[in-house]
Amino acid sequence: MLKINPNYKRLKESYLFSEIARRVAEYSGEHPEETIIRMGIGDVSLPLCPAVIEEMQTAVREMGQAETFHGYGPEQGYDFLRRGILGYYGEFGVELEADEIFVSDGAKSDLGNILDLFSAENRVFIPDPVYPVYVDTNIMDGREVVFLPARQENGFLPMPPADTAPADIIYLCSPNNPTGAVYSREQLETWVDYAKSHHSLILFDAAYEAFISDDSPRSIYEIQGAKECAIEFCSFSKTAGFTGTRCGYTVVPKALQFDGAQLNHMWLRRQTTKFNGVSYVVQRAAMGVFTPEGRRQTKENIAYYKQNAKCMTDTLDKLGIWYTGGKNSPYVWLRCPDDMDSWKFFDLLLRQIQVVGTPGEGFGACGEGYFRFSAFSSRADTEEAMDRLYRLFK
Amino acid sequence: MLKINPNYKRLKESYLFSEIARRVAEYSGEHPEETIIRMGIGDVSLPLCPAVIEEMQTAVREMGQAETFHGYGPEQGYDFLRRGILGYYGEFGVELEADEIFVSDGAKSDLGNILDLFSAENRVFIPDPVYPVYVDTNIMDGREVVFLPARQENGFLPMPPADTAPADIIYLCSPNNPTGAVYSREQLETWVDYAKSHHSLILFDAAYEAFISDDSPRSIYEIQGAKECAIEFCSFSKTAGFTGTRCGYTVVPKALQFDGAQLNHMWLRRQTTKFNGVSYVVQRAAMGVFTPEGRRQTKENIAYYKQNAKCMTDTLDKLGIWYTGGKNSPYVWLRCPDDMDSWKFFDLLLRQIQVVGTPGEGFGACGEGYFRFSAFSSRADTEEAMDRLYRLFK
Repeated sequence: MLKINPNYKRLKESYLFSEIARRVAEYSGEHPEETIIRMGIGDVSLPLCPAVIEEMQTAVREMGQAETFHGYGPEQGYDFLRRGILGYYGEFGVELEADEIFVSDGAKSDLGNILDLFSAENRVFIPDPVYPVYVDTNIMDGREVVFLPARQENGFLPMPPADTAPADIIYLCSPNNPTGAVYSREQLETWVDYAKSHHSLILFDAAYEAFISDDSPRSIYEIQGAKECAIEFCSFSKTAGFTGTRCGYTVVPKALQFDGAQLNHMWLRRQTTKFNGVSYVVQRAAMGVFTPEGRRQTKENIAYYKQNAKCMTDTLDKLGIWYTGGKNSPYVWLRCPDDMDSWKFFDLLLRQIQVVGTPGEGFGACGEGYFRFSAFSSRADTEEAMDRLYRLFK
Repeated sequence: MLKINPNYKRLKESYLFSEIARRVAEYSGEHPEETIIRMGIGDVSLPLCPAVIEEMQTAVREMGQAETFHGYGPEQGYDFLRRGILGYYGEFGVELEADEIFVSDGAKSDLGNILDLFSAENRVFIPDPVYPVYVDTNIMDGREVVFLPARQENGFLPMPPADTAPADIIYLCSPNNPTGAVYSREQLETWVDYAKSHHSLILFDAAYEAFISDDSPRSIYEIQGAKECAIEFCSFSKTAGFTGTRCGYTVVPKALQFDGAQLNHMWLRRQTTKFNGVSYVVQRAAMGVFTPEGRRQTKENIAYYKQNAKCMTDTLDKLGIWYTGGKNSPYVWLRCPDDMDSWKFFDLLLRQIQVVGTPGEGFGACGEGYFRFSAFSSRADTEEAMDRLYRLFK
């Protein structure tokens, strides 16, 4: 008789985005004349840049001709793309080897699948509020999760807790989703020291690194010793608008030795057994990001979103509303005015000014009382939404 | 201190294809003047058909324009493709609902990932010889694997064993990789009855169904009651040459209820948590397979490979060498002449006639003494290889 994985019964259903959709639909039904502006989405709005499109078109043509057709590729990604990623890391002074890079269909897949390598006995630190995938994937395996509270007092950047037993696995996301907060070099040094002294592994989510424009670390490997204690996840989704194109990469340094095993070797075994590599056409698209034109064009797109973020933070500054993020991140995380709870603030914005954001409570208990705006909408929508917000609270 | 998944230490390294490559390289080094014909690969050689290329080109253009750009899509696949797959199943009389179909980046990923849903306590039946992924993915989870011997006596089609305790999970692959053997309707009915009476789950790998041209079942769901006991995995890899394009689909009927859980709901939860859907461009490519032109063109390609298979089976018939497969499958599984072992036969073909195939032993203990040829090479190479084989053994 088939026995299911009992941990699935411990998962909570996530109602965040379905509840948002429900409330928006209800309001729209009552007020069909109103134009609602969506400032909550984590999806991009700008199309793929021309350099990426050009590479894809070439690759599609190749796939139609026997002489240039590509069948099964290497599970860990084509050399041309791994070399492109190596060069990109070189821009911020990180040296890696090609076989430390694994190309995948996105950071979400790898963040979930990496847990295959680890025992269910490990204890896990996860910041709260957080990208829900970290929590759910560990519940699916039955691991003990300890939340690290991220609050206004610590700038939404939790540090190693003095009063809690150490964790074996530590999630860090910088720039953070949902808060947009970014760890400094000194803070990451403290985390690396902590991980090394406890033989813990850091899972570092760098999906938003391309939004960093000051000297905050863009990779955990900018920190000395990190190659012995950290795996890094990155993605073309936000760097180059690949949310619907699907490509990311995970760095598993060969120096990662735990419990008698080399994690790089284990991950290669996992990927060659349960994965067949990313579509050739998509890998060529990703390669387009690393051409000189692709680098310039993707930087322009990121600058566009960051200008949206600046429009939001300027408005919040004028209104005296506390926030974090927005400077090195596409997300602005604000404190709901008048100590409103997140869903009350959500309803207020929806009903008074027809602007939709994301209630912080949906990302974890410590998100209560906070609210996320995303900079991925169009300029016009962002400006209009901020204008309405200013008029409501001024 | 991080503890690794201890089951990884129980995995055997697969030396099959690296050992083949080593022996071929050694021989080529000694005899650079010889032309080696590769009849061992499971990869396709014909390019993507024009109907698929056309859809992809349109989709790439769409991704470059804001008005037609696609960001995050549904994790379980776009409706247009799920409807196409529904229609395809209709061709062989199987009715499914759209939300029973999950589009993925390939059958290999889903065959591995589906095991997330099941307890490590389950006992597993796996035919021997077999696609190595079934075995390794279960070892990674620590499940007990019981091999079902596939031999000449049972036509390489093992049936439920009378003398062994029942399994909770049963792998069936038809048309089989590596043997090319195909289960009949009656045989699959026996398996479905067995699974239902023991509350077992069949994992049915139908990756090669498009090669069936007689009335053997192309889907397990052609068998009454299968929706209550079977998950089916399928792929565009061999149907339409998508080995490097990466798209497949898994059918999880809503009637699958085990241990108080609906497997369809669990798989949806797994996929929405650990997967972000298949690239829009690739899903459009897959949709191209279901246009009238795409159906005609992919059928032509399959006919081409089947003609290669016929060239092989005609030669073996003339030589009086026993084989299975080749009729409803791109693989021909032959008994090595003169009771040679598989690797001795491999060396003989390599050194005497410069033809490379795959030793059956590499697919499991019961594969010893057998050998796999693939029909995915070009017509010219296939004819030349069979000509050399005929002259060697006539």
